[in-house]
Amino acid sequence: MTTRIVELRKGILKKNDELARELRQRFEAAGVLVLNLVSSPGTGKTAFLERTLRELRERGARVAALVGDLETDNDARRLAASGAPVRQINTHGICHLEAEMVSRHLEGWALDELDYLFIENVGNLVCPSSYDLGERVRVALLSVTEGEDKPLKYPTMFNSSDAAVITKMDIAEPCGFNREEALKNINEIRPGIRIFETSSKTGAGMDLWLTYLIQEKAARLLSQ
Amino acid sequence: MTTRIVELRKGILKKNDELARELRQRFEAAGVLVLNLVSSPGTGKTAFLERTLRELRERGARVAALVGDLETDNDARRLAASGAPVRQINTHGICHLEAEMVSRHLEGWALDELDYLFIENVGNLVCPSSYDLGERVRVALLSVTEGEDKPLKYPTMFNSSDAAVITKMDIAEPCGFNREEALKNINEIRPGIRIFETSSKTGAGMDLWLTYLIQEKAARLLSQ
Repeated sequence: MTTRIVELRKGILKKNDELARELRQRFEAAGVLVLNLVSSPGTGKTAFLERTLRELRERGARVAALVGDLETDNDARRLAASGAPVRQINTHGICHLEAEMVSRHLEGWALDELDYLFIENVGNLVCPSSYDLGERVRVALLSVTEGEDKPLKYPTMFNSSDAAVITKMDIAEPCGFNREEALKNINEIRPGIRIFETSSKTGAGMDLWLTYLIQEKAARLLSQ
Repeated sequence: MTTRIVELRKGILKKNDELARELRQRFEAAGVLVLNLVSSPGTGKTAFLERTLRELRERGARVAALVGDLETDNDARRLAASGAPVRQINTHGICHLEAEMVSRHLEGWALDELDYLFIENVGNLVCPSSYDLGERVRVALLSVTEGEDKPLKYPTMFNSSDAAVITKMDIAEPCGFNREEALKNINEIRPGIRIFETSSKTGAGMDLWLTYLIQEKAARLLSQ
């Protein structure tokens, strides 16, 4: 039975990869930079994204977001307060987003009128790593509250990511966060990855993060 | 393809349920109270379990633990410091523990010489909810750093649990934790569930938790 499951799973992943490839081509053609945000539940993806959307909009960028959760539209409502177009994807029990869900929820959106599209994945450090959503940049988030060894315990999530964001730096001290240990572990799993140390509350580290986004977007345009 | 996956998944779950039932009978016959600890990665399951094992041992109880992670034996090494027998289960990419893994890792242990066996699941708020491990008590943990709406977003994990533990109460204030909201949400998903508010650092709430464990164990013996 296990062999059949593995075979079927391979088939599903292959189909997902094909659809993700089509999505990536659509995103590139439209000139929109697409990011897939992955983390454990409770890392603060939504708070980080709220601030990112707001600050990008203040700089004149056109942004939108898709947000995945098993249930509720809490996050979409929170993010919509930024003024950006936001849609909730409810997976109803599925532990990750798939390219098909992204494709379906983009209907009616003019991608060429966007600069950045953020996809907030379901909170899960395992399952989303296998599903390409057509993103250009995968961002793994890790909060100071979670323990510095998470990259070692969930290596696939971190080594399939293009950037890492440490969140909640404002409470690093009461949490006894060991910064050197965290940086060492992230680098061990994904050598040379860009790491941003941020606080959605105080805004610390957001400038470097926004500069990175703007540079990534510019680099895309130049390479076309 | 989806229908075939659903059918195969049902088959796997059925097989798991059968094995879990056998395990439950073995645990009951041996008189050991078995608990399955589930939460998001980084909630502090290991720190909570470390303190629980130590305090139970100080009270003369015979305890052991199995601990699940995709990779590393960090947690088993941490827990072994309590002096209790501990074994690590590495799932190598699988997002949850299964009854078969538990059964295999119990080999050679005299269950009738144990009072409590704790199983620390893989950090994941979705997948472990479907897999019965033969436990008597499923415990869902939630930290003050994660956001009060997690029970609403991951309802299956919370409504399949017998007890809820809020961790890291010592940093509730810097995290802006809304206690009433969290309690309300847990109760909405699983009305009347026992909730323990704890700190593994300060020991707050541990007495009530240990009393609960001792009472659950005594109730089992009486009902046999």
